[in-house]
Amino acid sequence: MALPITAQDEDAFFIKKIYNATLQNGKCYERLTHLSEEIGGRLAGSVEAQTAVEYTHDLMVDMEMDSVWYQACEVPVWKRGKEEEVIIHWRKPKPNKSKILNTPNRKEQHKTLNALSLGNTIGTGPSGVEGDIIEVYDLDTLDKMGAALLKDKIVFFNRPMDPSQISTFSAYGGAVDQRVYGASRAAKYGAKAVLVRSMTLAQDDNPHTGVSVYDEAYPKIPALAISTNDANQLSNLLKDQPVNVSIKNYSKNLPPATSYNVIGEIKGEEFPNEIILVGGHLDSWDVGGGAHDDGAGCVHSLDVIEILQLLDYKPKRTIRCVMFMNEENGLGGGKAYANESNAKGEYHLAAIESDSGGFTPRGFTCTAEDEVFKDFFINFTSFGDLFSPYSLYLKQGGSGADINPLKSQKGLLIGFKPDSQRYFDYHHTAVDRIDAVNERELKMGAAAITSLVYLIDQHGLR
Amino acid sequence: MALPITAQDEDAFFIKKIYNATLQNGKCYERLTHLSEEIGGRLAGSVEAQTAVEYTHDLMVDMEMDSVWYQACEVPVWKRGKEEEVIIHWRKPKPNKSKILNTPNRKEQHKTLNALSLGNTIGTGPSGVEGDIIEVYDLDTLDKMGAALLKDKIVFFNRPMDPSQISTFSAYGGAVDQRVYGASRAAKYGAKAVLVRSMTLAQDDNPHTGVSVYDEAYPKIPALAISTNDANQLSNLLKDQPVNVSIKNYSKNLPPATSYNVIGEIKGEEFPNEIILVGGHLDSWDVGGGAHDDGAGCVHSLDVIEILQLLDYKPKRTIRCVMFMNEENGLGGGKAYANESNAKGEYHLAAIESDSGGFTPRGFTCTAEDEVFKDFFINFTSFGDLFSPYSLYLKQGGSGADINPLKSQKGLLIGFKPDSQRYFDYHHTAVDRIDAVNERELKMGAAAITSLVYLIDQHGLR
Repeated sequence: MALPITAQDEDAFFIKKIYNATLQNGKCYERLTHLSEEIGGRLAGSVEAQTAVEYTHDLMVDMEMDSVWYQACEVPVWKRGKEEEVIIHWRKPKPNKSKILNTPNRKEQHKTLNALSLGNTIGTGPSGVEGDIIEVYDLDTLDKMGAALLKDKIVFFNRPMDPSQISTFSAYGGAVDQRVYGASRAAKYGAKAVLVRSMTLAQDDNPHTGVSVYDEAYPKIPALAISTNDANQLSNLLKDQPVNVSIKNYSKNLPPATSYNVIGEIKGEEFPNEIILVGGHLDSWDVGGGAHDDGAGCVHSLDVIEILQLLDYKPKRTIRCVMFMNEENGLGGGKAYANESNAKGEYHLAAIESDSGGFTPRGFTCTAEDEVFKDFFINFTSFGDLFSPYSLYLKQGGSGADINPLKSQKGLLIGFKPDSQRYFDYHHTAVDRIDAVNERELKMGAAAITSLVYLIDQHGLR
Repeated sequence: MALPITAQDEDAFFIKKIYNATLQNGKCYERLTHLSEEIGGRLAGSVEAQTAVEYTHDLMVDMEMDSVWYQACEVPVWKRGKEEEVIIHWRKPKPNKSKILNTPNRKEQHKTLNALSLGNTIGTGPSGVEGDIIEVYDLDTLDKMGAALLKDKIVFFNRPMDPSQISTFSAYGGAVDQRVYGASRAAKYGAKAVLVRSMTLAQDDNPHTGVSVYDEAYPKIPALAISTNDANQLSNLLKDQPVNVSIKNYSKNLPPATSYNVIGEIKGEEFPNEIILVGGHLDSWDVGGGAHDDGAGCVHSLDVIEILQLLDYKPKRTIRCVMFMNEENGLGGGKAYANESNAKGEYHLAAIESDSGGFTPRGFTCTAEDEVFKDFFINFTSFGDLFSPYSLYLKQGGSGADINPLKSQKGLLIGFKPDSQRYFDYHHTAVDRIDAVNERELKMGAAAITSLVYLIDQHGLR
C-alpha cells in the first residue's frame, strides 16, 4: 500500500527536482562568465552597462517569457578616466641611538600606492594635489581636530573593518562611513583630499572602489581608496616620520543619462495580480567583471525562470525577473521601478533580491513592516523543514537596496544570504571576476532562490 | 538594576569571546601555511611526514600543554616514484559520407593525459603496459562483460560523481568504489591496468589520487586516475574509434615503517578521566600541500588549545589534541590510538574530528551508538540556540575515520562539517595548497570547534 502523499511531501519532492535541474542544467555560470568576462565592468551610463541591458533583454526574449520590456531610469554618469597615481614620499628617520649627525639630506623614499578613485569623486587632473598625510580613525575625530590640524592636509581614514564580526557585511557597515562621507567631513576643515583604507578584511594589494557622497555645503575634494597592505605600511611610516603624498586622478562627473531596468515575467494563472519579484542589479563598478557584485544576482534571477520552465511549472502568481540598473551609485533603477509600480497600483506579494554574491547559500532574511507581516513571517518559518536538507535559514533581517523602495506595497521583502566570508575579498575590485566564483556554489544559490519562489507561489504568505 | 546572568548567557558570552579571539589571534592560517608550503605533501612514511610530526610536537611543547608525546604506529610505505606517463593513441575516424577510399594509414593521433598513480598501486616500471581501452560505468558491469571482453584490456572507469547530490561527500561516496576496488575487480577478468575518472565534480585538468586496495585473490595491476577533462575527451573518442593507451608509472610498495601520532593534552581539573579529544590527520597525499586534507583539521585542533589558553580557560575535563598519522592509506594512527586507549581503560567522553576541509563551518554531525547516546544527542540539541548566531547545526551523522575506532568506549563521536561544495575541487591533488584556503573560513572552523569543546567541557553529555 502506498503511503498518502502530503502537500509537504509534494513540496519536498518538487524542491529536490529544482536542485537536480539547477545543479545539472542551470545556466547561471555560463551567463555569469559572459557578463563578467565578455562584457566586463558595467557602471551605469557606460557602454558596457548598455551591452548588458541588451544581452539580458535578448536572453529573456529567447527564454520566451510572457512579456519582456525595458524600463527607463535616469542614472548619474561618472568616469574614472586615466589610471590614478598616488605616490607617498618620506625621508628615512634618524637611526636610533645613533651618533651620526642629523643631516637634513636624508635620502628621500617614495612608493606608488595601489589606489582607485571612489565613485562620484572629482579628479585632480594632471596638476594633481599634494600635501602631508594625517591619519584619522573615524569621522568624529575630525570635529575634534578641526581646521588647525586638518587645513591643507590629506586625510587618511584607516579604521579597519572589525574582524571579530561574524557577518562580513556587519564589519563593512561599521567601517564604510569613512568611504561614503569622509571627503566632505574632511573638506569641512580645509583638507585637500582623502585616502581611505579599502573596505575588506583581506590583507592584500587590491584597492576597493565604491560610492562616495559629497555634502554640497563643502568644497568637493578628491577621494581615493588604497589597498589594505598599503594602508598598513603607510600607518607604520606615519609612526616614525611625516609622509607626504601626491595624488593625480582623472575622474569626472558628466550629465545624467537614461539607462534601463530589464524586466521579464511569466503571468500567473490563478492570481496574476500578485507579483513575486526576483532580481539583482545589472550595473557594477567599472573595474573587474562585477561577478559577485552583482552579476551573480542577475544570473540567479534568470535561472529561477529557466528552471521553472525546464520543470514545466505553471505559476499561480506572476513571477517577474528584474535586472536593476544603477544600484552602485544612485539606485536610479530601483526608484524608477517602485515609482512606476506604485503608479500602476501593482502589488508585490514578495520581492527577493540576490545582491550578496554567488557563494554557498546560508538562507534568507525577510523584512516585515507591521504586525500583519510578522504573521506572514511566522507562517513562513514552517518552510524551515523543507529547507533543512539544504541547511537554509529563514529569519528576519534586511532585504536588498533595489527592492527596498517597494516597501510601501507591504509585501514581503527578502534578501538572499549566501555565506559572506569571502565577499569582501572581491567586492568593488579588479578581482571580482568569474574565477572568484565557484560554479556549484553559484548554482546552489539559484536553486535556493527558485525553491523559495516556488513555495511562495504555491502557498502565498498566509 | 542588572539583569540576572543565566548559564546560557554566560555560555553565549564565552562563545563570543572564543570567536573574537580566534578571528583576531588564531594561528591556524599561519601554521597551515607552514604545513602546506614549507613541509608540503606528507604521506605516511615519508620524510615530510616525519618533519610534520616533529613540527607539531614542538608546537605543542611551545604551547606548554600539560603533556605532549609521540605514539608509535605502523604505516605502509608507498612511493610514487618518477612522474607517470599515460599516452592515448587513436586514428582519425573515416570522414562521414565520404567518397575517399578507406585508407588504413589514417594519421595516428596521440595525447598525454593528466594522470596520477593511485595510492598503493604497483608500477609498470620503464617497460610500461599497453592495450586497448574499454570504458565501464560501474564495477558490476565487469561481471557481465567477463574475460571475453576484458582480457588484456585497459579498463577505464568513467562514472562521474553525481552533481545533483547536495553534499559533495555523498557524491564522492557514490563513485569512489571505482577508485578503491576497480583494479582487482578488473584484474579478475584479465585486464592489464585501470584508468579511473578523477573523483571530483569540477571539469578540469587536475588528476586526483587516493587510496586503492588490492584483493589478494587476483593479480595486482596498475591503477591511475586521469583528470575529468581527459576522461570526457577519452569517452568521446571511444564513441568513434578504438583508443589504445600506453602507461608507465614507477610507484612501489616498500616494507612498513614506524611513524607517530602526536598527542598533547591539558588535564581537566574536575573530571580528569573524561577525555574530550579534538584531532585531524597529519598525513596527506604526496602531491600538493595537504592544505584542506587535512592540514586544516590539524591546525583547527591546535587552535582549540591555543584559544582556550588565550582566554585563560581552565577545563573541567581533559582536552586532548591529536595529530593522527596515516589516515589516507591505512589508518595506522587511528587504530594504534584506540588500541592503546582501550588497553589503558581510558574513556573518551567525546571525540571531534575535523577532516572535511577548512571551509566555512556548517555544523557538526554526531554518532550515537545506542539509546543512551541518543539521549545525549537530544540534550546536545539544546546547544542549538547558542550556535544560532553562527548558523551551525548539530545533527546525527558520521564522525571521522581516525576517531571511529574509539566507538567501543561509547562516547560521542563528532565530525566537524564545513561547507562541502569546493572540497573535491582540491581533494588529493597538486592544487590542495594554502591558496585554496580562505583565512577567515579556516578561522571560523577553529572557533566553531573550540565552542563545541567548551560546551561539552562545561556541561558534559547529559
